[in-house]
Formats: sequence, C-alpha cells, structure tokens
Amino acid sequence: MQLGLIGLGRMGGNMRDRVRAAGHEVVGFDPRPEVTDVPSLEDLAKALSAPRVVWVMVPSGEPTRSTVRALADILEPGDLVIDGGNSRYTDDAPNAELLHGRGIGYVDCGVSGGIWGKDNGYGLMAGGAPEHIELAMPIFDALRPEGPREEGFAHAGPVGAGHFSKMVHNGIEYGLMQAYAEGFELMEASPLVEDVPGVIQAWSRGTVVRSWLLDLLVNALSDDPHLADLEGYVDDSGEGRWTIEEAIQHAVPLPVISAALFARFASRQDESPAMKAVAALRNQFGGHAVKKAAGPAGAPGDVAGPSSGTGSTHG
Amino acid sequence: MQLGLIGLGRMGGNMRDRVRAAGHEVVGFDPRPEVTDVPSLEDLAKALSAPRVVWVMVPSGEPTRSTVRALADILEPGDLVIDGGNSRYTDDAPNAELLHGRGIGYVDCGVSGGIWGKDNGYGLMAGGAPEHIELAMPIFDALRPEGPREEGFAHAGPVGAGHFSKMVHNGIEYGLMQAYAEGFELMEASPLVEDVPGVIQAWSRGTVVRSWLLDLLVNALSDDPHLADLEGYVDDSGEGRWTIEEAIQHAVPLPVISAALFARFASRQDESPAMKAVAALRNQFGGHAVKKAAGPAGAPGDVAGPSSGTGSTHG
Amino acid sequence: MQLGLIGLGRMGGNMRDRVRAAGHEVVGFDPRPEVTDVPSLEDLAKALSAPRVVWVMVPSGEPTRSTVRALADILEPGDLVIDGGNSRYTDDAPNAELLHGRGIGYVDCGVSGGIWGKDNGYGLMAGGAPEHIELAMPIFDALRPEGPREEGFAHAGPVGAGHFSKMVHNGIEYGLMQAYAEGFELMEASPLVEDVPGVIQAWSRGTVVRSWLLDLLVNALSDDPHLADLEGYVDDSGEGRWTIEEAIQHAVPLPVISAALFARFASRQDESPAMKAVAALRNQFGGHAVKKAAGPAGAPGDVAGPSSGTGSTHG
Amino acid sequence: MQLGLIGLGRMGGNMRDRVRAAGHEVVGFDPRPEVTDVPSLEDLAKALSAPRVVWVMVPSGEPTRSTVRALADILEPGDLVIDGGNSRYTDDAPNAELLHGRGIGYVDCGVSGGIWGKDNGYGLMAGGAPEHIELAMPIFDALRPEGPREEGFAHAGPVGAGHFSKMVHNGIEYGLMQAYAEGFELMEASPLVEDVPGVIQAWSRGTVVRSWLLDLLVNALSDDPHLADLEGYVDDSGEGRWTIEEAIQHAVPLPVISAALFARFASRQDESPAMKAVAALRNQFGGHAVKKAAGPAGAPGDVAGPSSGTGSTHG
Repeated sequence: MQLGLIGLGRMGGNMRDRVRAAGHEVVGFDPRPEVTDVPSLEDLAKALSAPRVVWVMVPSGEPTRSTVRALADILEPGDLVIDGGNSRYTDDAPNAELLHGRGIGYVDCGVSGGIWGKDNGYGLMAGGAPEHIELAMPIFDALRPEGPREEGFAHAGPVGAGHFSKMVHNGIEYGLMQAYAEGFELMEASPLVEDVPGVIQAWSRGTVVRSWLLDLLVNALSDDPHLADLEGYVDDSGEGRWTIEEAIQHAVPLPVISAALFARFASRQDESPAMKAVAALRNQFGGHAVKKAAGPAGAPGDVAGPSSGTGSTHG
Repeated sequence: MQLGLIGLGRMGGNMRDRVRAAGHEVVGFDPRPEVTDVPSLEDLAKALSAPRVVWVMVPSGEPTRSTVRALADILEPGDLVIDGGNSRYTDDAPNAELLHGRGIGYVDCGVSGGIWGKDNGYGLMAGGAPEHIELAMPIFDALRPEGPREEGFAHAGPVGAGHFSKMVHNGIEYGLMQAYAEGFELMEASPLVEDVPGVIQAWSRGTVVRSWLLDLLVNALSDDPHLADLEGYVDDSGEGRWTIEEAIQHAVPLPVISAALFARFASRQDESPAMKAVAALRNQFGGHAVKKAAGPAGAPGDVAGPSSGTGSTHG
Repeated sequence: MQLGLIGLGRMGGNMRDRVRAAGHEVVGFDPRPEVTDVPSLEDLAKALSAPRVVWVMVPSGEPTRSTVRALADILEPGDLVIDGGNSRYTDDAPNAELLHGRGIGYVDCGVSGGIWGKDNGYGLMAGGAPEHIELAMPIFDALRPEGPREEGFAHAGPVGAGHFSKMVHNGIEYGLMQAYAEGFELMEASPLVEDVPGVIQAWSRGTVVRSWLLDLLVNALSDDPHLADLEGYVDDSGEGRWTIEEAIQHAVPLPVISAALFARFASRQDESPAMKAVAALRNQFGGHAVKKAAGPAGAPGDVAGPSSGTGSTHG
Repeated sequence: MQLGLIGLGRMGGNMRDRVRAAGHEVVGFDPRPEVTDVPSLEDLAKALSAPRVVWVMVPSGEPTRSTVRALADILEPGDLVIDGGNSRYTDDAPNAELLHGRGIGYVDCGVSGGIWGKDNGYGLMAGGAPEHIELAMPIFDALRPEGPREEGFAHAGPVGAGHFSKMVHNGIEYGLMQAYAEGFELMEASPLVEDVPGVIQAWSRGTVVRSWLLDLLVNALSDDPHLADLEGYVDDSGEGRWTIEEAIQHAVPLPVISAALFARFASRQDESPAMKAVAALRNQFGGHAVKKAAGPAGAPGDVAGPSSGTGSTHG
C-alpha cells in the first residue's frame, strides 16, 4: 500500500526504509530538501491515492500539533492520520476531534525500539477506532518485528491508548535502567567483584535479569569497562514525568519509577539546594563541619567547622 | 567428569538432570531416600575418584554451613567444594578458610535461572582461585546455557565474588519486577487502556523493555488477565535485604532497589503502624476523619470525624 | 477594621471568632442559615464600607472560583478579595485577572494551623501587590500568632506566591509526618523499646526532633498507646500531589515528599495490583508460593505452591 | 551527688557544665590535660565515693568499648557505668554483660540536643534495670530540660533500649531535615516565591510544620539567604544507616528515612556510577547525546551524539 510519512529524522528515516523494504510505497516529507521525497505537504497529499494514510513522525508538542492542523486542511474525508511520535496522550483527543470534524480518521501509535528498530522492527501500541487500525494494519505489520503480530503490536484501546501505553512503557524503562545502574554501581564499589563487565555479560543468558537493556549495557561496558568516558548526567524527554503525573491522577503509588526520575533530576545538578539545607541544619544543631562553596577570595571546598573535640550525638 | 551433588530439591534435582544430560556422572545425595543416589555423605565421597568436585545445593545459612563442615571431615586434600546455593557472600570466606585448613578448595557460585534452568541453562557467577574454577569448568559448561561461555558464566573474582554478584543480580531483579509491576498497575488504573495484557504482550519484541521477566508477565496474564486470583503479598528470601545492607556499607545510594524491597515489606502488612500514626496526626491537627479499626463492639471501618463543615487547610 | 468573611465552616468559623476577639468587625456569610450573619453575598457587600476587604474561606476548586466570580459582580473598584482557602496556586492568576478587570484587588493567602489556629493563631503566607497586603494587614495581624509579625506572616511574593508557599508547606508536612510515623513503626516492631509512647514523649523537649507535630503524636499516643483503634488509611487533600507535580515542572528531586505521598496512596489500597504482579512473576520463575485471593468457592489466603523441596535461588 | 564523666569534648564538656550548674559534683576525665579534672581513670575512681556513677561520653565504637573494658577493671561492685555516647545499641548487651560479671551496673542513654543542650537541656532515652535508672536519676534530672520529667526523659526499656531509641530518633531526624530541604529547594526553583527565607520564618509560629529544626533553618537562612556559601555535601555519622539496617531486620518499610539517607550518599559523589550507566544505556538504544567526561586531551563536558535529526522516542 501507500504511506505518507512526515518527518524523516533518525526515527522517520529508518521507518521509511523499513516500510519500503516490506514492499510498500512511501512518500516522505521533511523540511530538509536533502532527505524529502516531495517539496510540500500538499505534494505529499497529491502523490497518494485516497484513502490516504499519513504517518506523522515529528517532535511531540507544538510541532506535531501544527502538523495535524495542517493535515486537517490538506487531507480529505476518509483519509487517516497516525501520530507515531512521542506525544503526550492528552494531545490525542483534541487532534482526533479536529480531524473528525473534517471526516478524517486519527490513530495514535506509540513506537518503541530506538535506532535498532530499522533492523529489529518496532514495538507498536495503537489507539483508535477498529476500522482505522485495520486500514493501517499493513503498515503496522511492516514496522513491527518478525513473529506473531501480538508480540509486537497491540490495539490498546480508543484514541489516546497508544500513547498512554507508550508513556507507561517508558516509565517502566526508567525503572529498569535505574535498577541495572544501581547494581552496576554497587559491584563497582566492592573490591570483591574484579570483573564487573564479565559478571554483567554472564547475565546475558539463563538468568532472571536477562533483557535487551542488559545486552546494551554489555555493549557499553565492552567499549569502556568502567564507563570512565561518560559523565553521570542523564536527560529526560518527558514520558517519565508524565507517568508520575498520571499516577498522581489515579492515586497509584510508583515508588520505583519516581525514584528513577528523581535520580535523573539529581544527576543534572551541580549543586543540590536541598543538600545545602541539610548541611546547614547539621551545622546549626551539631556544629558539624560544612564544606564552604568556592568563592572569589576562598579556596574551593574548604571544610569549616569546629577544630577539635568530640562531635555531637547527631548524624 | 564426576560430580558429587548434595541437595536434590527443586533446583538440585534439575541440575542433576542437566549435568547428566551433558554426559557427566553425577552422584547425588539428599536426606530423602526416594531421590538420593547414595545413603550418606561418606558414600558420596567413596563413590567419587579424587580429586572430587562436590556441589552443595542446600538452603543457605546453617544448612549450607553444616554441610561444609561435614565435608571438611569427609573429603581429602585436593578435593573441591562448590557452594551453589543462595548463601550470603559473607559465609564464603569462613567456609573457604575451614576447607583450606584441610587442603580442600572452595568455590562459591551464584546460580540464576529458577525452574527454567533445567532446559534453558543457568546463569553462573563464580568466585574462587583460578585453578579451582578450571577444575570445575566442565560442570559449569554443562550447567550454563548454550552459546558463548562468557554469556552465561563469569569468574567474578576471589572467593565470595560469586555470591556477591548473585546478591546484586537479585537486587536488580527486585527493581526490574517492581518497575513492570508499577506500569501494570498504572495501566490497570486508567480506563483508556482496554487491553492491558495485549499491550504487555506487544512489548515482547522490538521494544526497549523486552526481557525474560516481561515474557513471564505475559505468561501470567494469559492465565489471569487482571491477576484476580492472586493476593498482592510478596515474600522475600534475603538477597534484596543483603543488597541494601551492602550498599549502606559502601555508601552507595540504591533508591530503586530499596523502594522495591520496602514495597514487598508493605505488601505483607495487614495494617501499617506507620500509616496509623499519619492518620492519627491528621486527625490531631485538622480534625480529619479517621477510620476506626473494627472492634468487638463496633462496626469495622467506621469513619469517625467531624460531622460537617469545611475541612481544615491541611492535607 | 471591617472584614467580610465567606465560608463559616470549621476554619472560617474559628477565624471569625479570632478576628472578632482582636477587636475587628466581621460580617460572615455562609449558606447555612444557622451560622451566617447575612442572608446573601449582596447583603455582605452592603454591610461593609468601601474599600471592602472580603476573605473567601470555602473549599478550593470550583467553590472558590465561583465565589470569586460572584464577588467580581458584587464588589466595587477599590475593594479587595483574599482567597484564604487551600486553592492551587494556578487558580490565583485567573482570579486576580478577573477581579483586576473590575478594579478589584486580589490576594492569595495560605493559612496553616488547623483547628488549633483559633487559639494559637494561624501561620500566614500571602501573595499580592504591596498595597493590597497593606490594606489587609490588620486582619493578618489578628489571625497570626502573637509574637513578631515575621514569625507568623510573610508576604511571599506576587499573586500566587501565598498558595505556592502553602502548597510547599503541606508537602513538607507530608514528609515530616511520614518520618515520625516510620520511627514509630520501627520502635513498635522491636521488642527492646518497652515504652514507645514514653520515648516519643521524652522527645518533647531538648531533642533535635521536637516539634508541634511531635506534640500531637504524644497526644494521640496518650489516648491509644499502640493506635489500636485506628486504621492505617490516610487520605490526602491535594497539596502533596501538587507539590510533586510542581517539582516535576522544575526538575527538582523530591524523594522524601513523594515517598510520603505514595505511602498514603498505598495505605488506601485493599489489594495492590503492582504487588500482585510481583507475586505472579516470582511464581513464574521460581515456583514460589503465591497467596490465592479468596473466591466464592475457596478459602481466603490459601497458599498455593510447591508442596516440598528446596526453593529456587531467587528472591 | 557525685558524677564521674569521661570524655570532655564538645558534648561532654557542656554536660559537665550543666550538671555542675545543677549543684552536683563532677569529676571529669579527658586525655587532654588542659580540660581534665584528674590525670587518669584510676584517679577518677578514687575521687568518687561508692557507689560510683560514671558517665562515658566518648566516640562510639572502639573508643567506647575500650573505655568500658577499662572501667570493668577499675570500678567496684555496686558501681554504675552509663554510656551516653552514640553507640550502636548492639554494643550495649556485651558491655552490660562484661560489667555484670564484675557486679557493676550498666545503663545506655541516648542523648539529643547537640551544642544547644548545655542551655536548653538534653533529651534523654535510657535503657537498663530500674534500680540503675533510679541511682542515676539526679543526673538525668540535671541534664534534661526544665519541665515535666517525662517530656525530656524516658526509661525506654532494658539495656539497649536507650540507644535503640536514639538511633530511631536520629533516623527520624534525617527524614525531617530532608523534608524541609526539599521544600526549600522547590521554593528556590520557582520564580514565584520572592522571599524564601521570609516564608520559612513565617512558619515559625502557628503552622503545622513548626519545629526546632525549622528554627535552625531560619537561623541559617538569616545569615545566608540562598545558602550560597555552602556546598551540598552531607556527611552521616551512622545512626541513619543503622536505622535502615534495623528496619530490614524487622521487615519494616522506611521509604522516607531511606530516601533521606541515600540523598546524603549521593550528595558526596562527584560522579554517580549509576547515572553513568543510565546515560550509557540511553546512548545505546536511542543515540541520545551523552556528556563525555573530561580527559587529558579533551574538553570537559563535551556533548557527543548525533549531530542532527529527530531524537528517538525514548526518554
């Protein structure tokens, strides 16, 4: 079948390749002339026969919303728009409503797999009406991994359910990554485990903790056994935050996923105002030494505190 | 080669089968006559040619320690004892020292894989001297999964390193399981995701969160889509606790693994004394309603509190 | 001076008493005839001389917003509305804007102190323009505790800053309460501390943990030394949730306050879906026993699992 | 009465002053000639009439244990040793047993109050036999704050109960401090609260969060409103760690106190190995940019990653 694909960045470009390799015709649009197949969205619409299926793969938030608005004007009744980007699920109902007013269908699809998806296939979670899901099924089949459909694709529910599922997937991902990372740190901290990368590699088969993320950690450690070349600075792209916010809406306790999110926040701080406050309190009640911040006229990290004597009985 | 195997429970029995299937001779001992190959440890020793390799697979703690003490008296210089159980790594140095005094070698080996290991192979992490590791390598090769040795076996370091690695493996396992579980709960809590088991199954291939534990969750949900037949009561067998204790020794922050452990503790409480105290405090400052515990003369779960009026400004 | 006071529930009624006791004239309105001073908001406005100061003390959310809308129609340019309820700070800017269009001023004021404030005074955090703060200062002085003004009142910043400060105050409160509660539980769990209420009472003076909340815990334990009459069920009225959501906006790690919030969520669950999932996973990989939920045809809490044998090596 | 006091550091010196001010005779010993009253422990014993009460106020661990051993040789049947230091409660039973063999009594006493205790009095939690508690009561009364005895002193239980209670007290203290600190950080992160120190000071009276620790935070902020002179580096002296270890023994969930402890651990890390691992994983699956650590030949903090294109759909 034919697919219109908007956004040919790292993800979109790979997806174009994968869908084409499955034998479908893909017309891609991207503002960058060197990668686009057509010069404009209008040309993309013209290049496709009705009913058109147009997959949007651009950054979430305003870029996706404005693309949907543009498609509402360009497409025709009976066409279908799929948002495959990382939109917050709360964007889906407004997008669907706007398009519905023009007779255009809408499906939201969470896509997992990263840069490996081109070869391995992408895990897909879709939300929308059954007839829209069915219309796009050949594309879903092209994008998902080999094997039974249900192991790489789910029709999660109505519009929004796809991105909701993907949000939860990413929240889980935060927890998984942090769990491995904590174990790595503890082994690094002990003199007993002399071959930390070897132990982690030995978990690749047979163990309870084997996973694709573990395989990636093995890869990373094979290049840099102590990760000496990296800073412990971890960004986030929003889904972990949304997961916690959603949990708060539903009064669901998420101690692990929230801890993983907060560890990322903390990783980006040069100085923690909170820990300054704790240091200040310890100094106040116990005369505990504090580290003075570097100043123009002072040496960095000087320890100021009582010069001698038994400490207080507080910790 | 020959292997003496002590402990033929679920794990040990399976391991006997797997090692035999690899072509080795296994002499197993267990106090239960219906499963044992020999009537006593002494007979086990007699049935093996020197240098003997004897694998201990009995419950950790005193059962393992007393087995090692018995072997110290029965085995001969040059023999080798492997503790493959779930011992705390701090037991390994005393065990090794005791045996070393008799000229007997000692290796600790963490074993992962559960009841699936018989068919899939077991992930193995061993600690000990290189010559002892080498002596037992045919057994390790029989037990570990097919594939490159380093993907299912590691010589982690000196005595203790094997169980230390296994302890960390299990700590990570706690975090992984809790991460999936939190995601499951959040999806169950939202009306949007209509097919939670389907979404989780769709993560089986291609996604970032795919793993063996995920496959097991898919299995569990295929039988019981909402886990309605289970109580949310989760035991623990110690390794998670040891992981946190070890982290405290090394001042390593483990927010995720500790949260997973504490969630298990909480799951086993009918009533939380801590939350009673919070409820009492809210009642004290704000006149917030509290739930009265059931008593002989009262209805269970009655709500006691102010009969009307705007609440306080506290939460 | 004169004060209009809308909402004469537990908080508002007490505040009317306290402001009157300070020598001011208070005209209160409440829909309940038995407590109101005037039959309608219009009558309240008529009873006050311009410039009027009207304090709104009704439940947050729509009740407060609709009261502000009504006052926008009833009051006159130069008058001042103070929202002293527990509104989310994001409501303040829209409220202020609506009133500003009519020439009416707006101040948001966080109020802490619960049912004890009538006698002890209330801690106050106000947001708004300096001239509005000044206009209401006699009321703030009447409501706040005796002592230096700055120890019971702050002009926190512009509109919204008062409720923001109160939100953070309540978030901290969650953390404080949970910290005491955890300590209480740990002492209750140990046989060593024979007089837990006595120990907690002994913290009342001189110690680092002395506080008003501690005093309240002493009160609660004096009535019920083991809190046997309470259920460990803890509600929340929103500020803790907002605190976490705000932290997420600013990428501020709040591990303690979030843990306190999640402990409340968990306290309200009869069954934890997450812990069911963890139990299911343990059963899957290790054959660990699970507790079967009670069913129509089965006994509650039956333990199902392998009838014998050594367990797996997983926790 | 007479008191022997060993250890005249910051705490011990202040306590000597306070007990003397209450009219008792104190004979102090310290290895530092400039502060000691007697040249040796033997002289201390000689200077006191039987039955002697000797208070040990030296660093916990080996210094305290060796002092108790020395006293076992020097004191006489009927005398009493009080360990008022910050010993782990597990040291108390061995100490008591050793002394009991010589007919000497033993009491453990947790002491809270820091450098302020000299003037405010110390909160005291004692463990031991009733007759020993009674013998030392005049000293407890001298040390504790003015007011009812039960508000500053508790006989918590048998030997060990005093230090256990103090351990829990300090664990709670960690949680309280972290709760305030998180609130401080969140207000600092928002542009809305223009006067953070003012808001915190306004919590001093009337509010639910008022406490002595809050007063200390007000003090600290009055000198340095943004704590700009401090580093966010927080040490710990062990009681928080013991609290978590004890909770693990009793399967008590302590999410808040553990989070506070781990925040301290993290505050002392220049680089987090765990967060390096998370960064490595994100880079592996999504091609997310990572920060390269500074090296001899490279610029610090360079960002390495894909030069352009839409990111992956992972966070």
